[in-house]
Order: sequence, then structure tokens, then C-alpha cells
Amino acid sequence: MTIETVSTNVAFGGVQGVYRHASTATGTDMTFSVYVPPHEEGALLPVVWFLSGLTCTHANVTEKGEFRRACAELGLIFIAPDTSPRGEGVPDDAEAAYDFGLGAGFYVNATQAPFDKHYRMQDYIENELPAIIAAHFPADMQRQAIMGHSMGGHGALTISLRNPGRFRSTSAFSPIVSPLSCPWGEKALGGYIGQDRTQWRAYDSVALIADGARLPDLLVDQGGDDNFLESQLKTHLLTEQCASVGQPATIRMQPGYDHSYYFISTFMGEHLTWHADRLKG
Amino acid sequence: MTIETVSTNVAFGGVQGVYRHASTATGTDMTFSVYVPPHEEGALLPVVWFLSGLTCTHANVTEKGEFRRACAELGLIFIAPDTSPRGEGVPDDAEAAYDFGLGAGFYVNATQAPFDKHYRMQDYIENELPAIIAAHFPADMQRQAIMGHSMGGHGALTISLRNPGRFRSTSAFSPIVSPLSCPWGEKALGGYIGQDRTQWRAYDSVALIADGARLPDLLVDQGGDDNFLESQLKTHLLTEQCASVGQPATIRMQPGYDHSYYFISTFMGEHLTWHADRLKG
Repeated sequence: MTIETVSTNVAFGGVQGVYRHASTATGTDMTFSVYVPPHEEGALLPVVWFLSGLTCTHANVTEKGEFRRACAELGLIFIAPDTSPRGEGVPDDAEAAYDFGLGAGFYVNATQAPFDKHYRMQDYIENELPAIIAAHFPADMQRQAIMGHSMGGHGALTISLRNPGRFRSTSAFSPIVSPLSCPWGEKALGGYIGQDRTQWRAYDSVALIADGARLPDLLVDQGGDDNFLESQLKTHLLTEQCASVGQPATIRMQPGYDHSYYFISTFMGEHLTWHADRLKG
Repeated sequence: MTIETVSTNVAFGGVQGVYRHASTATGTDMTFSVYVPPHEEGALLPVVWFLSGLTCTHANVTEKGEFRRACAELGLIFIAPDTSPRGEGVPDDAEAAYDFGLGAGFYVNATQAPFDKHYRMQDYIENELPAIIAAHFPADMQRQAIMGHSMGGHGALTISLRNPGRFRSTSAFSPIVSPLSCPWGEKALGGYIGQDRTQWRAYDSVALIADGARLPDLLVDQGGDDNFLESQLKTHLLTEQCASVGQPATIRMQPGYDHSYYFISTFMGEHLTWHADRLKG
């Protein structure tokens, strides 16, 4: 469980690092970034996971997410994994489309060949990477939060719903709330998991809540001018499901905002403050 | 003096735009970005110019500078021009090196062929682009500030020193303080202006101050672990020159920080607050 340091840069009094390791979950090298804020020697700090969206690597949010200032002020470690396995021998979408294969792991364990060999992002994010973080960083793994954007919002919601008690708080920007109900989800889960849609329910936040999973609270921000809102994201499905079963949730439509990091960065500080409030103590 | 809108994104309640226009100064299309913060209809807002460093376009600081939050809070328009002319017929460095030609205009008017035709970044930044900003954005041109990074720090300092009274405040991150005294400067000014070094003094902040130019104040932050500090940036030359003639200046060495946007973004908010204090009223 050794990791290689790709780069470190001092920022906001802490250290923004990028690291690489040989993943047993995916059978590939994986790269991730970790921001460790300024802290007292020996202190263990709460951890925020950020899962990114389609086409992204660890680098997008690391460069454009504007999270370091808030993490430095609030004392949060911020972890940004990659969105899929990569490298020689890793199969991609047949037409190299952006919404399947490389950069589009959907945070599932694929069961369908040829994807089942490397596309095990669920194992990677839920099990392997947390152990690496615990071993190599001053992380208090009793105080974890999770958030994500778009495909990564789907990842954050579903991983948290499937692992009750692991994350003290869960939030998302413009999440894909129901892969069962949109073209991105149908393509991805069909390709990775197969055509038995009952198997998809473990990877669908609306279905998980319908099937009884609960979280203490949820925070979701969605841009009102997001091009993907009606066709893919369908925020209202989550709003309605939460309301119908009494799942506490703050789901906000933000007029004028789109799907980009200009949107994410605008509300990043507020989300991190919300998480920090729940990670205290 | 028409401009074309390349993109707009809502961010922090304002609008981050990217625009393109046919420049008469450079004889090329030029692209720049402008962030307009939330404001009352009809209000005119103070303007901060940010000049970028070698290899950059408008996009680097726009994506990684983390200026929008502070600009939204302080009510500042933030302008990021490109660093050189680009396009068909624009000559580059003979070996396409990063430190001359494309992405390396050094904010001068070139006098040497073949660069004298397009490399007129001084005219562009000092005259043409301000007129465009005044015509197309809610900018109060009586309240301007200027800042920059590295080559752009050189640009900010020298443009402000040559135009006394135009900018109420001037700051820089890791500026090239004396092109007369470093390899980057010698290559660039030699190539653009020719070998008569007396002509370079108008493009050298240390020489301009030695020759009598003054500003009300200066703010400079320099990373202590910047790889270019000793060989190219030589901050101490500016510190010494300011001290020797009584030019007010706050020139700070920031231990541990490098030359990257991780450094810039850390201190961006503080610089913008400093500018805003001087732009008020």
C-alpha cells in the first residue's frame, strides 16, 4: 500500500498533493489528490471526499473547485479521486464517447465483460482508497463527509446511502439522481451491470431511498440553467422521493447557474461549511 | 470596436465572460476575459487588471485564480487579457521556446522585425483594451487597479510606473522585477526592442524607479520556494531600489510557496481587498 508523490504545492498554508498508486481494486495505477490544511502536529482532521463528473480526473476540481480556502479555514482534508481506471488494457467506450468507459466509471463494480476486470470503482472508492488515506494522511476516519458533481453527485449519494453511518454528511452539485431514469444512467449501468434493472437499484439514489435507505440529511444544489437538467439530472425525482418518505433534504435550484465549475466553485464554500458543521466533535 | 462573446457563465452572482475582438494594435484577433460582479443596474464599478505570465492566455487566471469570490464581495470588475498576439502570420520564437514569442509578449511594443508588426502588447493593454472595456462593460475607468504574475507582474509594475495617476493601486505576484538583469528579460527585450539597453529602461520596474517614476504604494508577494526566484525574478533588486529612493512598497517573501496558481490563489483575496481599499470613493 505504498503511494508515490506526483507533486505537492503549498496553498492556503496547507499542502495540495497529487499521488499515484497501484490499485488492487482496478488493477491499474490510480491517481488522486489530497489537500491537507494547516494543522497542529499530530492532529487528526475530518475528511471530505469529492467525486467528480464525466470526463474529469482528480485535476478538474483540484484546479478549479476553489475548495482550499474553506478547507484551510475549517480544517478539512479534501480528497479528489479519479473517475475511472485508465491505462494500457483498460477498455473504453466502443466509440470513445465521453459518457462511458474512460472518465465515466459511474462508481460501480462492473459485472459485464470486458469491463468487469478493471471498472471496480465502487471497491476502489469505498474500500481501497479510504485505507490508503487512513494510512498516509492525518485523517480522522471517524469523521468523513462525501460530496460530488454530476456523475460524482450520483456517486456521493449512492455510496453514502449504501453505507449508513459512514459519512456524517452528504451533499451534491447537479447530481444524476436516478441512472434508472436517464440516458447517461441507462447506457452506463446497462454496460457495466447488464440489463437486469433490478441490479441497478443499488446504484440509484432515488431507488435506494424508495427501498428504505436513509441519511440524516442531504444538501443538493442544482443550476437552473444547466443544459443537462431536464434530460439527464432530473432533480425533481429526488425532491419528490425525499418528500414522499420523509427523507430530510435541502435541494435548491440556483437560477442562472450552469453545469460548470463556475457553478461548483460558487457554492463550494457553503457546502464545506455545511459539512464542517456536521463533522465537528 | 465590436466584440464577440465567446462564453458567459454565472459565478458568485455575477457573470464570467470571455470575449474576442479584432485588435488594431496587434493586427490579430485577441481574446480576453471579464468578470462583472453582481451590481445595481446602472452602477459603474472599479476595475482590476490582471496581467498573466509566460505561457498563459486569459484562461489560466480565469480558471485557477480564485478571484471571483472576492470580486463579488468587493464589487470589482476583473479583466484578464492574453499575453501575446496569436494566429496566422504571428511570428514565434525560432525554436518555439516558452519564453519568447507566443504567450510571451512581455507587454512591450516591439521595434524589431519581424515582431514589430504584431507584438504591440503595450499599445493593446495601455490604450486599445481600456477603450473596449469602457465601451462595453459597466466600468468606472476613474477607478482602476493593476496586478499581474511573473511576466505579468513586470507588466503591471512597468505599465503603472509609466502612467502615473492612471492606477490607484498596483500589486504583483512573483514579478520579473528587472528584465535588464535576468535571462528572460534579456532574451525578450533584446528580441523585441533590440540591443540598445537604454531603450529597455522603460520596460524595467527597477530602472523606472531609479529614473524617477513613483507610485503611491506597491504590494508584492513572492514565494520563498519559487524555482525562478534567484535566476529570473530577483525580488531583492526591487526591494533595494524602493528602499534607496523612498518608494513606498510592501514586498513580502512567503515561505514555502512556489511560482504556481496555488500560490497566486492563496493571496488573491488579500490583494483584491488591498486594491478595493484604494479604489473606494
